[in-house]
Amino acid sequence: MPELSIGEYSLVYNLFSFTFATMFASFIFFVLARMQLTPRYRMAMVMSAIVVAVAGYHYFRIFESWEAAYVLQDGVYVASGQPFNDAYRYVDWLLTVPLLVAELIAVMTLAKGSGWLTARLAGAAALMVILGYPGEIATDVSARALWGFLSTIPFVYIVYTLWTELGPAIERQPGTVKVLLRNTRLLLLATWGFYPIVYLLPIVGVTGSTALIAIQVGYCIADVAAKCGYGVMIYAIARAKMTANNESVMDSADTALMPTPA
Amino acid sequence: MPELSIGEYSLVYNLFSFTFATMFASFIFFVLARMQLTPRYRMAMVMSAIVVAVAGYHYFRIFESWEAAYVLQDGVYVASGQPFNDAYRYVDWLLTVPLLVAELIAVMTLAKGSGWLTARLAGAAALMVILGYPGEIATDVSARALWGFLSTIPFVYIVYTLWTELGPAIERQPGTVKVLLRNTRLLLLATWGFYPIVYLLPIVGVTGSTALIAIQVGYCIADVAAKCGYGVMIYAIARAKMTANNESVMDSADTALMPTPA
Repeated sequence: MPELSIGEYSLVYNLFSFTFATMFASFIFFVLARMQLTPRYRMAMVMSAIVVAVAGYHYFRIFESWEAAYVLQDGVYVASGQPFNDAYRYVDWLLTVPLLVAELIAVMTLAKGSGWLTARLAGAAALMVILGYPGEIATDVSARALWGFLSTIPFVYIVYTLWTELGPAIERQPGTVKVLLRNTRLLLLATWGFYPIVYLLPIVGVTGSTALIAIQVGYCIADVAAKCGYGVMIYAIARAKMTANNESVMDSADTALMPTPA
Repeated sequence: MPELSIGEYSLVYNLFSFTFATMFASFIFFVLARMQLTPRYRMAMVMSAIVVAVAGYHYFRIFESWEAAYVLQDGVYVASGQPFNDAYRYVDWLLTVPLLVAELIAVMTLAKGSGWLTARLAGAAALMVILGYPGEIATDVSARALWGFLSTIPFVYIVYTLWTELGPAIERQPGTVKVLLRNTRLLLLATWGFYPIVYLLPIVGVTGSTALIAIQVGYCIADVAAKCGYGVMIYAIARAKMTANNESVMDSADTALMPTPA
């Protein structure tokens, strides 16, 4: 672990706290906001709630690991000797990334065949994370590059499948829903595409404290966008589908006005 | 960190505990009370619940940071060497302040065009917080004044927009609702206007332990009023709108009076 100034250490520290708070806030949102949706869209919100809860737990751990890895000495932060545990991120992604693709399919409420599609995409997502990990902890750049390349294969498969197989289903959706789904698919591509850029930093020659800070800041931003931002988009899609299909969460006033079932 | 008497240290310590408890209590209120509202008003309560949960988390952190920053020595509290982390407040505000304006618009249940209005006001609120932070951590008074001034620009924009653009929509609301909305807008102006006063204290010559205590006490009071008090006002507005529109949340007693399904 490279030496850090108080400002550098605090930047990462505060960003971890921010990310934890955002995951926590998003959890409350997804749990409560799911009741604003009709039951068939609620499972997508349940998945989002799980994703941010798992991420919140891991950020709490990462936060503590960061605190333990450094000790303040003569005005600078030096390595305490305890390792900063990178595995938390990969365990987190292993659990959350397959859920994120599953969620996109769940909110589309496809008539049939979504089970096999979900299984293939979620499997590829898990494989992508598993193949990335050996590269992340590798000490030499060529091992990082090799595992990074292998990890890219399932990523390309996911992107290809989202555009070819899910494409026609997206095009069949009503106006606003179609636009939102296309945007969400793009958000998924953009945020997931951000991780490999961060991953590549040590390969392109960014090293020492700059690499450490850039990787942590980059992963935090990507996680907030890919989990919280993405979940809110999924909520917006569900609401837009409800409007398009003239569905509403019934409240008592509506119930009172409804004709009694015969 | 200036030296503090036991009384001074305890005042801030107890106030942090009070504020944490108030956020926690408000969270329970907003989560439970939202079911007393018809679905279209519930999102405003969800936002309030998120606001006080995020604030509660940060007060817990601030509380711990305060404890760590001081150590009791010969009957007085002296700096322990660990910094008191001011960033928690700003991270908190970055997440909560945009939600507070969004909430006011959500409870009004405007027919259309509220998305763009919300985006502008929430964006200005975030900008206001971001511009304030460099001044808060600045060691010299002129930097504090400069960033404080820059931060005031989005604040003035928010106030201007609330009075000009939201004004006509407020005037169209039925009697009690109109009065409550006007009062809530005033509460927002008064509480948000309190933060810059606290922020300015070091500039007008309040320094040392007096400044430290006054800033912490001031921010706590402002946070309780702007988050908990404000959220309760939003709840009252929703209830008043329900009364004006003759909406009600049905309970089991009402259901019993309904014609039984055959």
